[in-house]
This record gives sequence, C-alpha cells and structure tokens, in this order.
Amino acid sequence: MPNLYVALIHYPVVNKRGDTIASAVTNLDLHDISRTAKTYGLNSFYVVNPLQDQKALVQRIISHWTTGAGAVYNPARRSALELIKISDSIEDVAEEIKSIEHTYPKIVATCARRYPSSISFERFRNIIDNGTPHLLVFGTAWGLTEAFISQADHVLEPISGAADYKNLSVRSAAAIILDRLLGNTR
Amino acid sequence: MPNLYVALIHYPVVNKRGDTIASAVTNLDLHDISRTAKTYGLNSFYVVNPLQDQKALVQRIISHWTTGAGAVYNPARRSALELIKISDSIEDVAEEIKSIEHTYPKIVATCARRYPSSISFERFRNIIDNGTPHLLVFGTAWGLTEAFISQADHVLEPISGAADYKNLSVRSAAAIILDRLLGNTR
Repeated sequence: MPNLYVALIHYPVVNKRGDTIASAVTNLDLHDISRTAKTYGLNSFYVVNPLQDQKALVQRIISHWTTGAGAVYNPARRSALELIKISDSIEDVAEEIKSIEHTYPKIVATCARRYPSSISFERFRNIIDNGTPHLLVFGTAWGLTEAFISQADHVLEPISGAADYKNLSVRSAAAIILDRLLGNTR
Repeated sequence: MPNLYVALIHYPVVNKRGDTIASAVTNLDLHDISRTAKTYGLNSFYVVNPLQDQKALVQRIISHWTTGAGAVYNPARRSALELIKISDSIEDVAEEIKSIEHTYPKIVATCARRYPSSISFERFRNIIDNGTPHLLVFGTAWGLTEAFISQADHVLEPISGAADYKNLSVRSAAAIILDRLLGNTR
C-alpha cells in the first residue's frame, strides 16, 4: 500500500517578486484538496500555517462542515474536511507522522519547474509502494521557497501538459498529481 | 491532434434534492478550469449560463484579468482567462463550434456515476485522436441533469480514485480528466 501524506504550505512560500512570505488561507484550497485526498484514500491532509488568525480561520471552516450546520447539510463534505490537520510548520508535521509511523517521513517537494534532481511520477509511484512514509508538499502563492526545495529529500517532476503553460492552481495540481500517483488507471 | 472543447454548465444542473436549477458562478471555477485548459493546449473554455447578471459577473471577472489591473499584475492569468467564452446554452456552444469546424461537435457528458453506456478514458482518447470535434461538458452544483446526460452522444466513465468517495470538486475533476485525456504521460 502507498504510504503517502500531503501538506499544503502557507509558510515559507514566495510571492510574485520571490520574497519569502506567509500566505493567507484560501477556503477552496481546503475543500478541494481534502476532497481529492479523500478520493484517493489518504488519511490526513496537513494545512501548515504559523499565523494564529489563519489557523483560527481554518479551524472555523473545518468546524462548520464537520460539527456545524454544514455537517448536516452535506455529510460528504464533512468526511473530506475531517482529514484536515492544522500545523505550525513542516517540522511539526514530520514529528506527528513520526509519532504514527515510528520513522520520519521523506519530504517530497512539488514545483512547476524541473530540477536536475527531479524524480518522475513513475519512480515516485514505485518508491511509495514500498511502504516508507512520504510527505508530499504543495506550496501556496508563487510556490515553495528555493531553500525549502533544496532541503527536501526529493523534488517531483512538474506536470507535463500538452502546452508550455506552467500555471495550474495548487488545487488542480494536487488533483492531477494524486491521480497520477494513486489513481486506479495506472 | 485531439480536437476537444470544454464547457462548464450552470443550467440545466441539479441541486441537492435533484431539482433542475440554474446555479451561480464560482469565481475559482473560471480561474482553475481556464488555467487547466491552457495547460493542456485547448483553445477555448465555454462558460454556459443563461442568467444576465451571472453572465455580466463572468464578463467582469474576465475583463479584470484580461484588460484591467489584473492583466498587468499577472499576464499568465490573462492568457488563461482569455480562453473563456460566455454562452447562453449548450445549443449555442454547439452552433459556435459548428461555425469553426463546419460540423457539430459530439457532446460528451461527465458524471460521478457510471452508466451502462459509459465510455472509458482510453476509448475517449482514441475517439478524439481522429480529429472529430468533441465537446466535453462539466456540470456545476450537484451535476448535469439526467435529461442532459441521456441526450449526450457519450457519457465519460467516472474518475476512479483509490477509495469509494465520489465527491471531487468540478475544478479537480476537470483537471484530472483533461490530464488523463491530454497529458503527455499517457
């Protein structure tokens, strides 16, 4: 069985000019990526944001759909948003996974650019099939910082479309990547 | 070359109770699906909504990113949103495609449910490779009506995840389906 965790990072990421920033949470990132994670059988989806007000916002959205009016209105949405765990940092996520798996996860960064060290989707499918826990990391805003990417254990190759346009939303990228890694058609 | 058009339908779709409704436009549907369409080399993305105020809203969003402040701020977003064409009905979309292609497109409905007549992704890839224009249709809200689906030329098989959860957002479903049909890895 593939042993995969997913995290959406709001810090450290870069803005349009390349400055390192903490980004604001986008409501539909939470809904779309948790629904995708649920579709592909993942047990958790970590939302990483160190800012107190942003973490409170995420908690409020989750609560609406898991224990509030939304849970009654749309149970399918509840079962997706229940996967979300809020965390201050990628280090905290790694510690939490270690407490479950008794080993630290390998960190796999995603990026729209190709690196000399990028691994292919096929290779990554083979790697996660062996059961070692891996944490697949998506960046918000203009993406993960170079420092973060250079420290990751692997960088996944970019999504190849038919065109030379490299500007998918993180919601779409996460959907395509999880389908390529875990979809039944592969 | 695959000859594929994509439409996002706001009428006729169903609500939670199965009633036929016209749904409201979601801003991120426009952004995400146009970016996905651009990634996979499509030339247009039809947004179908018969309501005047909703069409005006779509036009306002497109204008902001294609001629307004957004076009300067984010040219990559402009080149995606430029693909959007607003239409009153699927019949109007079919007529517009006929004016380009000199033949009506075949209509292919998407749905999270499997039908006896559903065609596989592999079969659909083969069909569009022969150059006949096809219009792939996504429903908003709780999806396309049964009447619409029964009148389509084909129904595409549902996305198979690893789990039994059938509740992707239309943004994520469009991303996965276009990747399965047009992605370079296939």
